[in-house]
Amino acid sequence: MTQVTPPYTALLAVDAGGTSTRSMVVDPSGRCLGYAVAGSGNPTAVGSPAAAASVAESAAEALRTADVPGGSIGLAVLAMAGQGGTTSAAAEVGRRLAELGIARPPVFDSDLLATYFSGTYRPDGYAVVAGTGAAAIRVEGGQQVAVADALGWLLGDEGSGFWIGQRVVRAVLADLDGRQPATALTPLLLQRLEVARAVGAGSRAAILAVVQRLYAAPPVRLADFAALVFEAAGDPTAEGIVRDAGDALAQTLAAVTEPSVSGPVVLGGGILSHGTALAERLARTSGAADVRTVVDGAVGAAVLTLRHAGVVLDAAGFDTLTESLGALRLVRR
Amino acid sequence: MTQVTPPYTALLAVDAGGTSTRSMVVDPSGRCLGYAVAGSGNPTAVGSPAAAASVAESAAEALRTADVPGGSIGLAVLAMAGQGGTTSAAAEVGRRLAELGIARPPVFDSDLLATYFSGTYRPDGYAVVAGTGAAAIRVEGGQQVAVADALGWLLGDEGSGFWIGQRVVRAVLADLDGRQPATALTPLLLQRLEVARAVGAGSRAAILAVVQRLYAAPPVRLADFAALVFEAAGDPTAEGIVRDAGDALAQTLAAVTEPSVSGPVVLGGGILSHGTALAERLARTSGAADVRTVVDGAVGAAVLTLRHAGVVLDAAGFDTLTESLGALRLVRR
Repeated sequence: MTQVTPPYTALLAVDAGGTSTRSMVVDPSGRCLGYAVAGSGNPTAVGSPAAAASVAESAAEALRTADVPGGSIGLAVLAMAGQGGTTSAAAEVGRRLAELGIARPPVFDSDLLATYFSGTYRPDGYAVVAGTGAAAIRVEGGQQVAVADALGWLLGDEGSGFWIGQRVVRAVLADLDGRQPATALTPLLLQRLEVARAVGAGSRAAILAVVQRLYAAPPVRLADFAALVFEAAGDPTAEGIVRDAGDALAQTLAAVTEPSVSGPVVLGGGILSHGTALAERLARTSGAADVRTVVDGAVGAAVLTLRHAGVVLDAAGFDTLTESLGALRLVRR
Repeated sequence: MTQVTPPYTALLAVDAGGTSTRSMVVDPSGRCLGYAVAGSGNPTAVGSPAAAASVAESAAEALRTADVPGGSIGLAVLAMAGQGGTTSAAAEVGRRLAELGIARPPVFDSDLLATYFSGTYRPDGYAVVAGTGAAAIRVEGGQQVAVADALGWLLGDEGSGFWIGQRVVRAVLADLDGRQPATALTPLLLQRLEVARAVGAGSRAAILAVVQRLYAAPPVRLADFAALVFEAAGDPTAEGIVRDAGDALAQTLAAVTEPSVSGPVVLGGGILSHGTALAERLARTSGAADVRTVVDGAVGAAVLTLRHAGVVLDAAGFDTLTESLGALRLVRR
């Protein structure tokens, strides 16, 4: 916990994600006063300057909607993959927030823990996150005490968007190639890549056109094709991929599970929050009693910010936070 | 077939591989007169200038051992992945061979077909190649008429050295992470990476040390760890990977198999020529009656070169070639 000297009017919480960044201004009771969204806040994905710009843009707009000057922000906490990543990213974010009047250097915390606290106020439990990457954590006493996977697209991230997307593309190429059975994923991917029209599906030319297109992009972009597995629901190949992804995520969760630590399992990340079939498979395989899905880490970033300021929310405070943030989100959409 | 006007004394055959390049000087009867080895001849792996230098170095030495001047070479044929790859690679190779007195531009042919003809003189049959990459071809009338897989490490190459090596590393990280059972591959890989001594196996620090080391290298280097799967023979995880690789290669072979085309199945590439367990699994799964393993594409490059010059070897000619090349190889080792 960071000592924040009262009196202060408000706190700034930032959920800096790969796709978008959410900033929240909260008061010490847990009420959300301001909310705004900007672009990617992940320094690994877009570079430190662009990530810091997204943080600053969303923070400035959240302060405006809350009608709170930057100078009255007692503490800013950012939930970010890699917990701030490089020193340069942290310095860049600090500089941009200082321009808004927030003099105190921001505190960085785990984006996985922010996902956890988006689903519960309880100090003990688990989170499984599957977006482009994948990881599971165990939380005890409000701290992230264990993590499994989170090892990136080449060596880990099993059950993630990349993992699923790569399997989708491999299954389609193996279908076109005659190495695996036909799958409903094939027309979906060819249409998505606009390959069918150009060279005719089913030929070596179609295979090579897909291969050339995909090698031209960074490998991690294969995550873009993960959603096809849900579009092709009912197809045996697609269902096999979903089943394997759910099992992989359940194994990742099992790796951090301690019999002595019971609590909710919070599911987050684009793949789990949008792929109902996958979340259901994971819930069933893990055998967890209390499984909840959250759309992002916004609520949890605010919970973490309050904790850093010495405020630990109870059930009522958590409800106040989620309801006040939810009301602002409805307006901002 | 390329028209070669007699009289000519000899032909130059080059098997340009990713690890090493082999040059052979052969006479029109199929007798091998000269042989030499140099470094990588794969333009994709080492760049066009370095690949062309390897070709030139081995060619010059083969001409010397054969005591044949470059000017009396009627035709030079190179078996090379991508069949010469870029125009720049082909031009660079041609320029270097011209410096040796071989005026006529070289002909490029398939390295997969060279593997096939290293195992048989027959015009119809199949080859399965698993080195860093993986592919299967069908040969009819001496021509490569169908290919399956060969789609690279990100999207295909199922059962290849990369595919196996990536599974080895993933299994070790999942073991260290508690996501999968313990495997004998773990101490082997940690020793290989010299990680255990530095940070202590079993900890998150060991995991991150492995991950950092491997992300620092190009992804395709994961193929370097494929051989651990044979060192760990008897380990259930290692045997599972070998089983899956054999099944994947059998499916790739099945994709090019035509019931009307029967003939030998030639296995080649570093993984199949050194991994007996894998070759046996593939042979058993495919159900092929006549399966042979070759160590490289040298003999086949010479067969292809003779075919391009209008000479089709029969069984006796093939024996002459393999025996005369084998005798030179014994000397050159």
